[in-house]
Amino acid sequence: MWEKAIQDFYPDDIAVCYGCGRHNPAGLAIKTYWDGTEGTCRFTPSDDHLAYPGVVYGGLIACLVDCHSIGTAVAAAHDDEGRDPESKPMILFFTARLEVDYTAPTLVGTELFLRARVEEATPRKSVVLCTVHADDVLCAKARVVAVRKKE
Amino acid sequence: MWEKAIQDFYPDDIAVCYGCGRHNPAGLAIKTYWDGTEGTCRFTPSDDHLAYPGVVYGGLIACLVDCHSIGTAVAAAHDDEGRDPESKPMILFFTARLEVDYTAPTLVGTELFLRARVEEATPRKSVVLCTVHADDVLCAKARVVAVRKKE
Repeated sequence: MWEKAIQDFYPDDIAVCYGCGRHNPAGLAIKTYWDGTEGTCRFTPSDDHLAYPGVVYGGLIACLVDCHSIGTAVAAAHDDEGRDPESKPMILFFTARLEVDYTAPTLVGTELFLRARVEEATPRKSVVLCTVHADDVLCAKARVVAVRKKE
Repeated sequence: MWEKAIQDFYPDDIAVCYGCGRHNPAGLAIKTYWDGTEGTCRFTPSDDHLAYPGVVYGGLIACLVDCHSIGTAVAAAHDDEGRDPESKPMILFFTARLEVDYTAPTLVGTELFLRARVEEATPRKSVVLCTVHADDVLCAKARVVAVRKKE
């Protein structure tokens, strides 16, 4: 269990991501919390994040899945290698493939809850599975192939 | 060849999409132009749309692919059925599945060029293939399953 979001450990000089960088004031500020087994994320879409009236934009959900899955891959890799997230250089990943199945319309006005787990990890890449719920409704299922950045 | 972007034909009461709705002033204003065979889109990411310094955010690319592929499905369906985009009710689609392969880092400061084609169409859904180029670099290849909205 890490007390801070994984994104709050990202090195200052790269923490500019529109999705999750703490140094991007225009961005979404997506935060992943790691409990040793899975990453969780809570996010409430703004009134601008619409697809149709009353329905959340699927592109926003893709953004949440992307940053949250990468954050989960980063956290899991540190745990697997017994490394503290403050150790240097931090293990980082980038997105090689993103797949999202939109299983139900995501209604506005509800906090979204994302859960992600690493399904498969090799020295070169991790495959992350992620779900997005709005209350009890499964709104999206996703799979992200995260490639490890060379040190 | 349609003179206006396909999104500019979307009915007023639903044109609120964060990605492409002309009635969403906070949104990305993605525009798809249809030449009878393929949909094209040009978009220059803002300085906020970063993943790492100098590299465009993959979530933004997913947003571009999503709205542009849906726009292409809409345009192709009207053409296939010999219907004017002004005819009512407009044929609409929503995204059921989004797949994006990020094939190269997308460097900031370059206009992106998206091309999309309908690979397969049934009365219920269309499958759209889409590419994203920055100059001569193929940055992403994508596939979108677009489900037709019931009239």
